[in-house]
Amino acid sequence: MYNDLMKTFTEQSEQFFSPAIKFNQLVAKNIEQLAQIQLDATENFTKTSVEQLKTAAEVKDVKSFIDFNASQLTAMNKLSQQMIDDGQKLTQLGNEFKEHLDAISKDSVKATAKA
Amino acid sequence: MYNDLMKTFTEQSEQFFSPAIKFNQLVAKNIEQLAQIQLDATENFTKTSVEQLKTAAEVKDVKSFIDFNASQLTAMNKLSQQMIDDGQKLTQLGNEFKEHLDAISKDSVKATAKA
Amino acid sequence: MYNDLMKTFTEQSEQFFSPAIKFNQLVAKNIEQLAQIQLDATENFTKTSVEQLKTAAEVKDVKSFIDFNASQLTAMNKLSQQMIDDGQKLTQLGNEFKEHLDAISKDSVKATAKA
Amino acid sequence: MYNDLMKTFTEQSEQFFSPAIKFNQLVAKNIEQLAQIQLDATENFTKTSVEQLKTAAEVKDVKSFIDFNASQLTAMNKLSQQMIDDGQKLTQLGNEFKEHLDAISKDSVKATAKA
Repeated sequence: MYNDLMKTFTEQSEQFFSPAIKFNQLVAKNIEQLAQIQLDATENFTKTSVEQLKTAAEVKDVKSFIDFNASQLTAMNKLSQQMIDDGQKLTQLGNEFKEHLDAISKDSVKATAKA
Repeated sequence: MYNDLMKTFTEQSEQFFSPAIKFNQLVAKNIEQLAQIQLDATENFTKTSVEQLKTAAEVKDVKSFIDFNASQLTAMNKLSQQMIDDGQKLTQLGNEFKEHLDAISKDSVKATAKA
Repeated sequence: MYNDLMKTFTEQSEQFFSPAIKFNQLVAKNIEQLAQIQLDATENFTKTSVEQLKTAAEVKDVKSFIDFNASQLTAMNKLSQQMIDDGQKLTQLGNEFKEHLDAISKDSVKATAKA
Repeated sequence: MYNDLMKTFTEQSEQFFSPAIKFNQLVAKNIEQLAQIQLDATENFTKTSVEQLKTAAEVKDVKSFIDFNASQLTAMNKLSQQMIDDGQKLTQLGNEFKEHLDAISKDSVKATAKA
């Protein structure tokens, strides 16, 4: 039975599944890029917060308080730049993804029109 | 002792800590907004993925496979629009944050110049 | 062509894909539960942190400092109880998942032995 | 003015803030460990999901479907073991944290009783 199934499946599936496979590979590639941006953002944000928390926990006099505030300012400046960069990466990735989806939809329409 | 400390602390700290408090409140407000964007994005992405995973797990014939691919396309279109929106929110929040940091830095310089 | 494929696919796929479908539904169900635990933990941890950050940013004298520390203690007690509860949920879910995987593996072996 | 404040602050703050500093350092240390567990869990789960998604997107015939299911089984076995391990780490960390909080609370009571 497996041989029959495999033969039929292989013969007919190439034309039938090919656009779906192309689409699923696109989805996988985009999800991978989105996941990487989100993982990096979460790791970056978490590590910055933990560092600042540890610095805050060392505040014991005016000098260390001033040092902590200076270090907060640096961290916040870096974080806001990171937000701007991540925002642009997300927007660009979202736009690229939309274009790919459009292209695939048009290909499907053409393929259907030909059939 | 506590009374002495409290009196000195309260009298002198107002001028001294006021910019730091203002800065920390700004940090807290921005972190809150950033955290909300990231929580919403993570929740949205996770729920979409779980829904698609459940739909994928129901694929048992060609019809359900076609249905799954249509539902993937809808989900991916929504996700890419969400990425564009989140990207713009992040960029805007990062820029606002930078402007506020600049304003606070300028206030500090003025205050120091006067003193 | 689609009709042929659909007929063959439907006839032969039931026996062939049935264990895979059962397995994928199990995976989907477990991922959904794991994702819910992680989402809840992330949301709970983030909201607690943001609340504490906002309280910390209001510290301006000894009284508000004492209040902040009391609120930290309450928050940390709640957080550690949450960690214990989440830890037990995760361990239990991991064990259940393993048992289900074992059961499915045994079913597959039996099905193969019969065939 | 800064000198006055700094002198009073330094003299009186040592006894007053010392338990708070000890507590905040404990909080920071525990948050750091919790954050590391959650970051590792998120990274591990995300990378496994992306890998599986990429393998799923390559499914184009019965052989690759069987390969995908075998790879799912391996991934799910690893993931459930990871959940058990993470669950135990969380529970242990939560318990340790509670013990430390109890110890600090008792120290505070003793210090108050002596004063």
